[in-house]
Amino acid sequence: MGGDHGPPVVIPAVVRAIAGLPENVRFLLHGDEPTLTAALAKHPQAARRMDIRHAERVIAMDEKPAQALRRGKGTSMWNAVEAVRDGQAVAALSAGNTGALNGISKLILRMCVEVDRPALVASIPHSCGVTTFLDVGANVDCDAARLVEFAIMGEAYHRAAHGVARPTVGLLNVGSEEMKGHEEVREANRILRQGTIDLDYKGFVEGDDITAGSVQVVVTDGFTGNVALKAMEGAAKFMYGELRGALTSGPVTSLGALLARSSLLRFRDKMSPPPAAPLLGLNGIVLKCHGGADARDFAKAIRAAADVAQSGFAAEIERNMRRLPAALAPAAASADGAA
Amino acid sequence: MGGDHGPPVVIPAVVRAIAGLPENVRFLLHGDEPTLTAALAKHPQAARRMDIRHAERVIAMDEKPAQALRRGKGTSMWNAVEAVRDGQAVAALSAGNTGALNGISKLILRMCVEVDRPALVASIPHSCGVTTFLDVGANVDCDAARLVEFAIMGEAYHRAAHGVARPTVGLLNVGSEEMKGHEEVREANRILRQGTIDLDYKGFVEGDDITAGSVQVVVTDGFTGNVALKAMEGAAKFMYGELRGALTSGPVTSLGALLARSSLLRFRDKMSPPPAAPLLGLNGIVLKCHGGADARDFAKAIRAAADVAQSGFAAEIERNMRRLPAALAPAAASADGAA
Repeated sequence: MGGDHGPPVVIPAVVRAIAGLPENVRFLLHGDEPTLTAALAKHPQAARRMDIRHAERVIAMDEKPAQALRRGKGTSMWNAVEAVRDGQAVAALSAGNTGALNGISKLILRMCVEVDRPALVASIPHSCGVTTFLDVGANVDCDAARLVEFAIMGEAYHRAAHGVARPTVGLLNVGSEEMKGHEEVREANRILRQGTIDLDYKGFVEGDDITAGSVQVVVTDGFTGNVALKAMEGAAKFMYGELRGALTSGPVTSLGALLARSSLLRFRDKMSPPPAAPLLGLNGIVLKCHGGADARDFAKAIRAAADVAQSGFAAEIERNMRRLPAALAPAAASADGAA
Repeated sequence: MGGDHGPPVVIPAVVRAIAGLPENVRFLLHGDEPTLTAALAKHPQAARRMDIRHAERVIAMDEKPAQALRRGKGTSMWNAVEAVRDGQAVAALSAGNTGALNGISKLILRMCVEVDRPALVASIPHSCGVTTFLDVGANVDCDAARLVEFAIMGEAYHRAAHGVARPTVGLLNVGSEEMKGHEEVREANRILRQGTIDLDYKGFVEGDDITAGSVQVVVTDGFTGNVALKAMEGAAKFMYGELRGALTSGPVTSLGALLARSSLLRFRDKMSPPPAAPLLGLNGIVLKCHGGADARDFAKAIRAAADVAQSGFAAEIERNMRRLPAALAPAAASADGAA
């Protein structure tokens, strides 16, 4: 029921996505039963692989998270997350209210790590793929252990979402030398360097490595990540605006722009990020699709959710998380020794 | 003598710049006297407004800052900064080794504020001007008082460099609400909100405001600033590369790109940052020009240095810095009261 459009986008999207997915992938649709049944009537083939779960209420896109939590029980969003907790679904996908989805997911599934809130992941395009970049805003204050948790979760997500056997991981800093940066980032680097955590860790990376694709997963705290993400979005938006201005500034250049139009559209398409992002750190898989998604975007988000659901994502995170206490202990000891 | 090219760029640049500057603006050229005299021989008009100060040695572009400090005395860079300390020059400009210039400037002029190192300023283009953005890498750990110092210095610099009577100032954060962000940024916001410091402070801004021009001066710590700057540079570089690829992917679009060529070049020119950046926080004015500058860039850098030198820049910073202790005291008291 979520997103700016609701069933008129969600139903065509799920019909579109299901055709390309293995037979064993099935869907639970949470929402108003009459609306959903009517929308599915024209798609009997797809409808066979879906169950409708009626919900009396929905959470509005502009509802405050605190209010959504109080009156969330029985809404379509609540039920979708509850189905993950109860083992009826492997993953939940919503295009609804982001703050509400965060709060409800945390309340129902609980965190599997010690961060305050599910980490937010951005997928940044680069010339030959996508960089998984986290945390982009949920957790502002992060100590070294939190950064290592982000590395573990981000790496497992990148493998699940992009089918890369062993993604490379870097820690965002202001230089690549060991003594650079503040204490938290240097300590996280020491922990990851030990090799106790099973990751292909490449060391420190810098801000321009995010779009250079130097590593596949870039880890940082929620303050730096949020600022960097928005700074990149701002730079891209500014460049796009200037470019449009430059290309339409005279009759000859306008003709040029017209001739280059299809290339510019392909370019713009490549610059727009994937439509689904996971909430990382929960005991269960929840993905967020952006609210303005059309049926094509939402179908992509469904395929991404199905990929993650079918992977050993949660088990892999758990496997590495169990190594974390051991990894932290010697690091603390050596830090004491150095002091 | 500095930069990738030395006198073959510096002399034509100073000849070019001096013609547009008031008669009372004069230059000291520090370096190898025979080389500089020979280079100036063809420009007697300009040479009348220059004094050559012979230096036996230069600091190499690839010299480590620590080594440059040890053996710096008597080099052209050292002498240029010393001339500022001794009141022979109002400002020093160098296209030489950045680390060495930082270290030598700090050693000779000393810091006028409590930051570890001179703050680095980036000038970021936006659709109707330039954003002054600091600190972009010198001071990784910053408490609230350091952030307020950056606001004072950045505001005074923006006025001096761009002739804006009362630049607007924003503090970089992950949202615009008062309770957002970590402790340092919230505390700096409280201090700036009090009005004790004489600034047109607009509150919190976000990463995309840097290129949106929402405020004229954006303040942050050296960690976040460095990451954000490089992330924006990376995004711009990636976009430019993709665009070139898209525009040259077929004969029709190549023709389009050819027709749009002059616009693309103007666009590229607009995206490249101004060639001079001040080192802020010193008892004296030092500006850094990027090493790869050509004569046109270096002439721009000279004009920028002359603008700053002729403004009341240092006096204005001092005026506001004197208000800082008073601004800090009530903030600490109110923080205690709230605890």
